[in-house]
Amino acid sequence: MQGPGRFITLEGGEGAGKSTQARCLATHLARRGLPVLLTREPGGAPGAEAMRRLLLGGSGLDPLAEALLVFAARRDHLVSTIRPALAAGMWVISDRFVDSTRAYQGAGQGVDGAAIDSLAAIALEGRMPDLTLVLDLPVATGMARARQRGVAADRYERLDTAFHQRIRDAFLAIAAAEPARCAVVDATPDAGAVARDIAALLDTRLP
Amino acid sequence: MQGPGRFITLEGGEGAGKSTQARCLATHLARRGLPVLLTREPGGAPGAEAMRRLLLGGSGLDPLAEALLVFAARRDHLVSTIRPALAAGMWVISDRFVDSTRAYQGAGQGVDGAAIDSLAAIALEGRMPDLTLVLDLPVATGMARARQRGVAADRYERLDTAFHQRIRDAFLAIAAAEPARCAVVDATPDAGAVARDIAALLDTRLP
Ligand SMILES: Nc1ncnc2c1ncn2[C@@H]1O[C@H](COP(=O)(O)OP(=O)(O)OP(=O)(O)O)[C@@H](O)[C@H]1O
Ligand SMILES: Nc1ncnc2c1ncn2[C@@H]1O[C@H](COP(=O)(O)OP(=O)(O)OP(=O)(O)O)[C@@H](O)[C@H]1O
Ligand SMILES: [Mg+2]
Ligand SMILES: [Mg+2]
Repeated sequence: MQGPGRFITLEGGEGAGKSTQARCLATHLARRGLPVLLTREPGGAPGAEAMRRLLLGGSGLDPLAEALLVFAARRDHLVSTIRPALAAGMWVISDRFVDSTRAYQGAGQGVDGAAIDSLAAIALEGRMPDLTLVLDLPVATGMARARQRGVAADRYERLDTAFHQRIRDAFLAIAAAEPARCAVVDATPDAGAVARDIAALLDTRLP
Repeated sequence: MQGPGRFITLEGGEGAGKSTQARCLATHLARRGLPVLLTREPGGAPGAEAMRRLLLGGSGLDPLAEALLVFAARRDHLVSTIRPALAAGMWVISDRFVDSTRAYQGAGQGVDGAAIDSLAAIALEGRMPDLTLVLDLPVATGMARARQRGVAADRYERLDTAFHQRIRDAFLAIAAAEPARCAVVDATPDAGAVARDIAALLDTRLP
């Protein structure tokens, strides 16, 4: 395969359209003949998926234990899936990654931001995404989309608006602090329009 | 209950007698009328026990992912079991704790010691044991004891002598570096003699 792989992550609150846009982006890149790996967090590798089941199973962990478990899963995802794919020249698209921990366990649940940054430095050994798309939309819009999807509300969806507003603000703060890595995408238009905006963004950011 | 609780950990290589001495010590303290909680790692709380099953199940994790998972379990153990018991005035005895990660994942499997110390600082928020008993004996003796116990060799027992020598050296180095917390116990005599040595040690260290 030619060329180095690229690592792209999609971040944002509930119902922002991460999973939808991750699929659109994978299709878009594949149509261009690029080798694509579409993955997601928590999970994305066998050990990490087992940890995902613990995380989603309502294990009664405190937020810091949860952050440690998320980073154990992320480390496995990186080592078992992401790094080998990048080394093979693939374009890796991950539906959520490290910024979700900063937003959910950090801003959302009060885990110290410096602790999360230390965990990220230890677990990722500097392997940050080449591009992070922060899908941004009003909390109420995202919640309405998530509800309309029809599956039972997950534990985050059940939390109040103030929680989700902290999540949105945290993602915007990350994007503002790391502009070289992050791009904020307006996620309010219809999915096709958002997908076109993302494709255009890629041409500029990862030509 | 009267008096503050105390937190005692037992550490050492395979077959050193940690589990045997943890039981003896629990009995000894209970006979003195002290409220005792006997626990072990990895595990010791519902979430942590689920993580223990992942760790022991041969999840194919790299050593750093394993260290992160061990600390997620330890955090849960601390928050769900150890801290509440200490707050209630109990004497908590743990069969393995943080030093095992320094020895096994660190010295044994090559995870950076500074990374492990950072994880410990984040996960434990300073809650180190009041006393750590390092059960020390020659590697060959410990391996012979573990074998004679009759259950199938676990994944560490299958590793070579050089690995186990690094573990032994690491525990001794920890004890030398933190003499106020740690005491090295000669684990070669018979179990009754070791138990008496530990009881005497407690009278001096935690009067
Ligand atoms: N741009 C859009 N406009 C309207 N609806 C959308 C748009 N994008 C996605 N949806 C719909 O909104 C719902 C949530 O989308 P999606 O699952 O992609 O979001 P998500 O960010 O992955 O959510 P979650 O955080 O719950 O994983 C789905 O029903 C999807 O079809
Ligand atoms: N002082 C001793 N002398 C001889 N045998 C002992 C002594 N202490 C324990 N044993 C025996 O050695 C075996 C290992 O002891 P034990 O399980 O307590 O060690 P351990 O340190 O907990 O081992 P592991 O690291 O595998 O958990 C057991 O069969 C036990 O009965
Ligand atoms: Mg999704
Ligand atoms: Mg034991």
